[in-house]
Amino acid sequence: MSTHDTWLNHVKWNEQGLVPVIAQEAGSNAILMFAWMNREALAKTVESGEAVYWSRSRKKLWRKGEESGHVQKIVEIRLDCDEDALLIRVEQLGGIACHTGRHSCFFQKFVNGEWLSTEPVIKDPESIYK
Amino acid sequence: MSTHDTWLNHVKWNEQGLVPVIAQEAGSNAILMFAWMNREALAKTVESGEAVYWSRSRKKLWRKGEESGHVQKIVEIRLDCDEDALLIRVEQLGGIACHTGRHSCFFQKFVNGEWLSTEPVIKDPESIYK
Repeated sequence: MSTHDTWLNHVKWNEQGLVPVIAQEAGSNAILMFAWMNREALAKTVESGEAVYWSRSRKKLWRKGEESGHVQKIVEIRLDCDEDALLIRVEQLGGIACHTGRHSCFFQKFVNGEWLSTEPVIKDPESIYK
Repeated sequence: MSTHDTWLNHVKWNEQGLVPVIAQEAGSNAILMFAWMNREALAKTVESGEAVYWSRSRKKLWRKGEESGHVQKIVEIRLDCDEDALLIRVEQLGGIACHTGRHSCFFQKFVNGEWLSTEPVIKDPESIYK
């Protein structure tokens, strides 16, 4: 077992071999998005210094920003007390993490029994994914 | 279907009937912990104004702080673009979210191929859970 494997083995991967990942913007501390990584995605994230996730819908590695250019530069990676959740602190290129063109994916706020969209669309998604 | 049900139905519960939840401290924007809620936990969270999670290990509702007193007062609840992850912004009573006695559960930082504990223990866990 290499040193490389040792730190990866500290992570408690779930039954699907995945770990939940919270992406937080390093400057603002805003929560940008929530996604998943498998072993390979985390290894590639560390190797490249840019967030690589596992897309559960497309069932493949997903280098964040590969289409949109909205790459996430890794500032810091943290593991929680149970070692089954990751927090990555990133620099969000373009200032947009969400595929809807918003800064953060968490733009629906619970108000009086309803989910209200509260964050502005910074860029039209059609011009992001062309 | 009551209004109450409508907003709960907007959440995409996973195969186990759960949704991942990120708890963020409202003042500092620090990520405190990561946990799960089921439908009942989310309903009770909204109802009581305090975080109620679903404990996957104990298989029961877990009112955060029920033993430790480290209750999380809800400031805001947000849902992401895919409607399958929640962000709760909270006031953390006692300033301690982690069962290890630390402010945040994400205290292990990745440094040169190792996970290093970086956050101070504010209170001895033995004096928290007596």
